[in-house]
Amino acid sequence: MEVTRKNYKDSLSTVYSAIEEADFLAIDGEFSGISDGPNVSALTNGLDTPEERYTKLKKHSMDFLLFQFGLCTFKYDQTKSKYITKPFNFYIFPKPFNRTSPDIKFICQSSSIDFLASQGFDFNKVFCHGIPYLNQEEEAQLREQTEERRNQQANGVGTPSFISPSSSKGPAHVPEEHKDFINRVVEKVEALFSNSEKTLDLDPCTGFQRKLIYQTLNWKFPKGLHVETVETEKKERYIQVSKVDEEERKRREQQKLEREQEELNDAVGFSRVIHAISKSGKLVVGHNMLLDVMHTIHQFYCPLPELNIQPFFFLLLKADLQDFKEVTMCVFPRLLDTKLMASTQPFKELITNTSLAELEKQLKENPFKSPQVETTERFPSYDTAQEQLHEAGYDAYITGLCFISMANYLGSFLTPPKAYISARSKLIEPFFNKLFLMRIIDIPYLNITGPDLQPKRDHVLYVTFPKEWKTSDLYQLFSAFGNIQVSWVDDTSAFVSLSQTDQVQIAMNTSRYAESYKIQTYAEYIQGKEKEKPGQTAKTWGEDGWVKSNYTSSTTSGFGYPRYAWTADPSVFRKRSISPVQGAQGTEEALIADGWSHYSYPDSTGSKKMKTDGV
Amino acid sequence: MEVTRKNYKDSLSTVYSAIEEADFLAIDGEFSGISDGPNVSALTNGLDTPEERYTKLKKHSMDFLLFQFGLCTFKYDQTKSKYITKPFNFYIFPKPFNRTSPDIKFICQSSSIDFLASQGFDFNKVFCHGIPYLNQEEEAQLREQTEERRNQQANGVGTPSFISPSSSKGPAHVPEEHKDFINRVVEKVEALFSNSEKTLDLDPCTGFQRKLIYQTLNWKFPKGLHVETVETEKKERYIQVSKVDEEERKRREQQKLEREQEELNDAVGFSRVIHAISKSGKLVVGHNMLLDVMHTIHQFYCPLPELNIQPFFFLLLKADLQDFKEVTMCVFPRLLDTKLMASTQPFKELITNTSLAELEKQLKENPFKSPQVETTERFPSYDTAQEQLHEAGYDAYITGLCFISMANYLGSFLTPPKAYISARSKLIEPFFNKLFLMRIIDIPYLNITGPDLQPKRDHVLYVTFPKEWKTSDLYQLFSAFGNIQVSWVDDTSAFVSLSQTDQVQIAMNTSRYAESYKIQTYAEYIQGKEKEKPGQTAKTWGEDGWVKSNYTSSTTSGFGYPRYAWTADPSVFRKRSISPVQGAQGTEEALIADGWSHYSYPDSTGSKKMKTDGV
Repeated sequence: MEVTRKNYKDSLSTVYSAIEEADFLAIDGEFSGISDGPNVSALTNGLDTPEERYTKLKKHSMDFLLFQFGLCTFKYDQTKSKYITKPFNFYIFPKPFNRTSPDIKFICQSSSIDFLASQGFDFNKVFCHGIPYLNQEEEAQLREQTEERRNQQANGVGTPSFISPSSSKGPAHVPEEHKDFINRVVEKVEALFSNSEKTLDLDPCTGFQRKLIYQTLNWKFPKGLHVETVETEKKERYIQVSKVDEEERKRREQQKLEREQEELNDAVGFSRVIHAISKSGKLVVGHNMLLDVMHTIHQFYCPLPELNIQPFFFLLLKADLQDFKEVTMCVFPRLLDTKLMASTQPFKELITNTSLAELEKQLKENPFKSPQVETTERFPSYDTAQEQLHEAGYDAYITGLCFISMANYLGSFLTPPKAYISARSKLIEPFFNKLFLMRIIDIPYLNITGPDLQPKRDHVLYVTFPKEWKTSDLYQLFSAFGNIQVSWVDDTSAFVSLSQTDQVQIAMNTSRYAESYKIQTYAEYIQGKEKEKPGQTAKTWGEDGWVKSNYTSSTTSGFGYPRYAWTADPSVFRKRSISPVQGAQGTEEALIADGWSHYSYPDSTGSKKMKTDGV
Repeated sequence: MEVTRKNYKDSLSTVYSAIEEADFLAIDGEFSGISDGPNVSALTNGLDTPEERYTKLKKHSMDFLLFQFGLCTFKYDQTKSKYITKPFNFYIFPKPFNRTSPDIKFICQSSSIDFLASQGFDFNKVFCHGIPYLNQEEEAQLREQTEERRNQQANGVGTPSFISPSSSKGPAHVPEEHKDFINRVVEKVEALFSNSEKTLDLDPCTGFQRKLIYQTLNWKFPKGLHVETVETEKKERYIQVSKVDEEERKRREQQKLEREQEELNDAVGFSRVIHAISKSGKLVVGHNMLLDVMHTIHQFYCPLPELNIQPFFFLLLKADLQDFKEVTMCVFPRLLDTKLMASTQPFKELITNTSLAELEKQLKENPFKSPQVETTERFPSYDTAQEQLHEAGYDAYITGLCFISMANYLGSFLTPPKAYISARSKLIEPFFNKLFLMRIIDIPYLNITGPDLQPKRDHVLYVTFPKEWKTSDLYQLFSAFGNIQVSWVDDTSAFVSLSQTDQVQIAMNTSRYAESYKIQTYAEYIQGKEKEKPGQTAKTWGEDGWVKSNYTSSTTSGFGYPRYAWTADPSVFRKRSISPVQGAQGTEEALIADGWSHYSYPDSTGSKKMKTDGV
């Protein structure tokens, strides 16, 4: 169901009840861009810490607009043994709703816009008919402003934009050149009192003149008048004066109050849908959803706090990420990322490509089963054979399908096997609140409800070199040390992961007298960063001159190697040498007893570090 | 004529010849926003110096996208006694043309987007079919890259993204895990030499693998092969190897060269139209065209230089503006701004509203005459009765009409009167290269070909006060000094212009013991700014947090007063008390002899300062 400003109000109850009755929700967002700073490969360095990654995404991705939001609700129908789906595709645009409302600026990235254009994205629908929204602070401000204006008008001191500390005392000071104008208005109003007309429309005039009229009339005629600013079709504003008795005045005030309340709700707009999702507490499923979650919170709840750079930079980074995790848990208490799920045992061995489109295809094949779904009447049903990828509603829909297939697959390990695993099953709890981290070699996910994994990086070197160097120079430099993996940091530095930790010292010794390049251990690099002056740290990303054109050609890393390949940190992912058959002996409870471990199956790579296998 | 990426190449010769044959050109641009920093009233302070205004516009308006460019050519047909017009409406979008091309980011301002949406602007046409462009530096870089790649491939060292200082020496270093792959490729190529096939399509592979293939084949088979990267429909890249004799090899090289040349021209795209306008040296007319000119140069020629803040801040500002003037004269040697023309004598007295739509209407009425125009066949003709305002092509069209009406009106003062005044007439030279300055009280225009006007500002005070203050507080504070005019600078400061210069000292004395506010003379204010540390100056605008929402309610200035009202600086605009009839006694030559003076007619305000008349 497509939802724009035109049908938003009429659709809201449908949306609310769909959320209310659902077993779980799937979401997806489309944005006006991805990175306003470094190119994506620099934005997502393979050896980022979770703190660094979060900080980079916040700094370089939050100024884009989330302009299409997909929501698909899934409700299991026991009698039909199938899911009933209701997909919604919302178009979002921060249309200023009045003169004093926030005038949002957002960045568009040509490559993202061009990509969406090539997928048939309808920009006119976004910009002409997008649903507005307010975050919580803006909503509170607006409520306050409305309240204030109401009080002031009740006290006869005009509209808030024209209130000054002095203007509430006594009659208005009318500047000389406006005296004639105001006197004429007063005469007209006096005439109104003595004739049979009920209302008087004054000529359109300026804001300043309206202020003077409000003040003068409130002072001269404290009773019996209702004074209101009205807009003509041409958006010219004029004042309408009506003779009213006390009852009529109150009725009008009440009407105005209700109208204001409705305008306020209209302004809050799409945020109300997010509030409903949040309040439902339902499981929210997304695919590679970290950016979706960040954008949703940033746009509809509260701007992700700006990093306030201070001496203990790294500690602060951690506090910053911790803040985000806490906010996320308040807004979305249960999240599940299908890309992370597909990248984890037992799916990891079965799924070669975890991009949404490919995942959806693979999950239709053996050993998985296509879920039985049915789209509710009145909702246009999506056909997965006719891919409508990158329409947010469709992406949310197939993300939900992927989740169902994978969840049901887990049921096949139970004794007896279960064909249907609900969104409330303990079997899927191990996947809760872990958001996939793109292209980090050794940390698969951001753990929203606990501390993050801390992989050892003692086989990693930090190398700085002249900007002419390419990946091949690094291969050549380290050719004596076996296979390496390169993660570019910027034009003149990269992380180089050696396959054997014991080679690190040898590499360090060899480089001692080098002039053109410099090698540090990962530990030295981190120490250096912690000592670094805050200003310098900011500079690394701050002067990227994002509006400048930037011919990039050399910072892509790891040509021809798998994009990521991670080993579980042993303390978290205990590997047990059990076959799927052996592992499927217990009950559902036993199966989930020690969390992730049951989803780890014998790894053909044995004890070798996976991160170096790919090289 | 609507021009998008689809018909751009076919239209180019039509555009070129229209420019070539034209008597003058009219232009207009539509942008994705106006100000990314302060709100517009703060961006355009009534007492900005030309340097300040230019610097603010550059800093806060250049990150928007000029995404629709209107060009209307006007050619006078002597036999028909009318202008033949060719209006073009170009849609512009920086679609990245390949993987290494600039990925432009631009800002959208919700209010501007919403306004254009309300005017029926077609965003899909911009984003899906906009014509790309490159500025001169990008074009040069691309030519260089193409040249370099060509040389390198001729020398057999692969594509530039994979070239390293070491890789041109000897055979490629093939990493262990790719040796099998490369050996298989070599075997296949050897087989190609011994069989009857002419070409061999290798399987799609990674960029790194392609690099290895290029290097290996160039080293192993220095002659008789043509190796080329080709893309499948699915955008997968693979290598095609062809057996060729020397002649065939050269022919293919030539073809490739031509293809590359065409791709390069496609990438330069819309900039070629601007180059043609520039090279033509024709008079370019625009309405309130400063931003159009700045954007056009910034987007299609060279980014307006970033301000490099250094100690002598004010001197630097001037150097900065001087740079801009010089660049402008190179790109557009003859400009004419119809808003400035309409705000100057003799038009000033006759035209009450100089907004484009209103101006166009007023110039149809007595004493002006609607120009006789005819749109060339094949060009959809615009009907001014059906306003299509804010479509750039239409705005350019009516801007041209306004210019013709005003120019012809000047002809009525000649003896004998002339009904047609050409774009080359000396009568209009006084209006050349003077760009209207929006809402500056006492400087009507930016003088592109000379020093700017330097009005006296000794009746101006700079007042700082608590942020709660509104305009009315300032009126009250200065109530003893007669009428004032307020120009807000920011939340806590404003310029206050007194009507009498001799009141300045009294106001200063009165404020001596004030605690809540502070008053400086304009001269003191300027001195203070010059002493100010560079960092602080930058801060004033730099931390405006443009993506933050900002409820503005109090910084609008001068409610109810005319937006601007300026007096000519006497040294430039010498006023002569002659009536139009008296003034129209001489020949055309005599009429233009002392520039602007003939367009000044008796001013009903006599010697009073106009800037205070409005108050």
